[in-house]
Amino acid sequence: MSGHLAVVGLGPGDARYLTPEADGALAAAEALYGYGSYLDRVPVRAGQRRHGSDNREERARAIAALRDAAAGTRVAVVSGGDPGVFAMAAAVCEEIEAGPDSWRALDIAIVPGITAMLAVAARIGAPLGHDFCALSLSDNLKPWGLVEQRIDAAASAGFVMALYNPISRARPWQFGAAIERLRRRLPGTTPVVFGHAVGRPDEHVSVTTLAAADTADADMATLIIVGSRETRVVQRSGRAPLVYTPRAVAEVSA
Amino acid sequence: MSGHLAVVGLGPGDARYLTPEADGALAAAEALYGYGSYLDRVPVRAGQRRHGSDNREERARAIAALRDAAAGTRVAVVSGGDPGVFAMAAAVCEEIEAGPDSWRALDIAIVPGITAMLAVAARIGAPLGHDFCALSLSDNLKPWGLVEQRIDAAASAGFVMALYNPISRARPWQFGAAIERLRRRLPGTTPVVFGHAVGRPDEHVSVTTLAAADTADADMATLIIVGSRETRVVQRSGRAPLVYTPRAVAEVSA
Repeated sequence: MSGHLAVVGLGPGDARYLTPEADGALAAAEALYGYGSYLDRVPVRAGQRRHGSDNREERARAIAALRDAAAGTRVAVVSGGDPGVFAMAAAVCEEIEAGPDSWRALDIAIVPGITAMLAVAARIGAPLGHDFCALSLSDNLKPWGLVEQRIDAAASAGFVMALYNPISRARPWQFGAAIERLRRRLPGTTPVVFGHAVGRPDEHVSVTTLAAADTADADMATLIIVGSRETRVVQRSGRAPLVYTPRAVAEVSA
Repeated sequence: MSGHLAVVGLGPGDARYLTPEADGALAAAEALYGYGSYLDRVPVRAGQRRHGSDNREERARAIAALRDAAAGTRVAVVSGGDPGVFAMAAAVCEEIEAGPDSWRALDIAIVPGITAMLAVAARIGAPLGHDFCALSLSDNLKPWGLVEQRIDAAASAGFVMALYNPISRARPWQFGAAIERLRRRLPGTTPVVFGHAVGRPDEHVSVTTLAAADTADADMATLIIVGSRETRVVQRSGRAPLVYTPRAVAEVSA
């Protein structure tokens, strides 16, 4: 008996972003595992078990899903955005490495999705149009010193930055500290995009500058894009501005 | 008269990755613009004009599409992967900024797609499961010194790297130079993933190490992921290995 486990990316909220491959993987599953809010986005299908759990229980969820798959069930673990970007795919791989041999025998499929930075960038233009990085501001699983080192490296080398997990009730100061650090390394005029709940009914996207960025505008559902020295804002009368990073860079920045 | 221009991400090749939003934008268009190979992926629809062009003519394509939209046409510019990642969205924004006021009045929509690094990562596990960067190795639009600076910064700070545009007939040595540079900064055992044409019939994904990486295995259709010091390979008998980067980092790397 060889079970099957798919880790499925739902994309950013709305079904318009769910790929046919992801839709097919969800329809084929006998059991669904996921954070309750993500499971709620998946249509209920007869005969399909649903195992919701809290957002922070990634490890327990991965283990429960792998056990179920090893027992012969066709399992789908649902993930917001893309499962490979600060989401469930790494958690599942970690447990496969640590777990029994039978888990390595499973048929594992990772089904990609539109991750938040791509959705936010699309809403506002093309801020990720040149070299960029994706950085989680959560220090639950890494030391804050490493976040600082990466912020410095990315700013100095001219990478645009997509900041995931900026803030939560348990991590209230980290985003402010990151913005302060960026202000010491990049011009105050650097464009900053706040993308809240993109693809959902309460979507809100705003453009500001590094000098004016208000950390109170970010919550758990916000993805922030911090431009590079090259990133530009195109004002348009009667329309939202376009923010983009040009494809060309003339010379090495300081 | 206010025209409409959508820049639409097709994702990596196969229609299973085309989102419903992208499919809808393609169906609604009166004129399609794009690189010929991407246009070939879009079903032919009656009454829809198609304007194919060469891969390198991004600027001319953006201008032609904007002119058409400003004349009142509903235009879709098609892009492989995600249009905001080393693709057409930035080219369109650049021309809007440089062009006549009427182009700023256009209704512009960027429709996100699955970019190559997400598709390649999904095929092999979760190599982008921790902080990462996306870097184009093309020095057509930036000095090679800047690519080197970014490679150094990303390697030193522990970012996993997704390398786009590794090689072409006109840029034969850059990927080799990048690998040589990485070998001086990361252990030879660092996992490296070559993802060729993911989502297409000639798809091929392989795993090697930085020491063993053969630059002859990359072509224009290859996306390379270079792991960090944390990235792990899980061998599985009878199955391809899983490559993943753990969510946790214990301490700041040297």
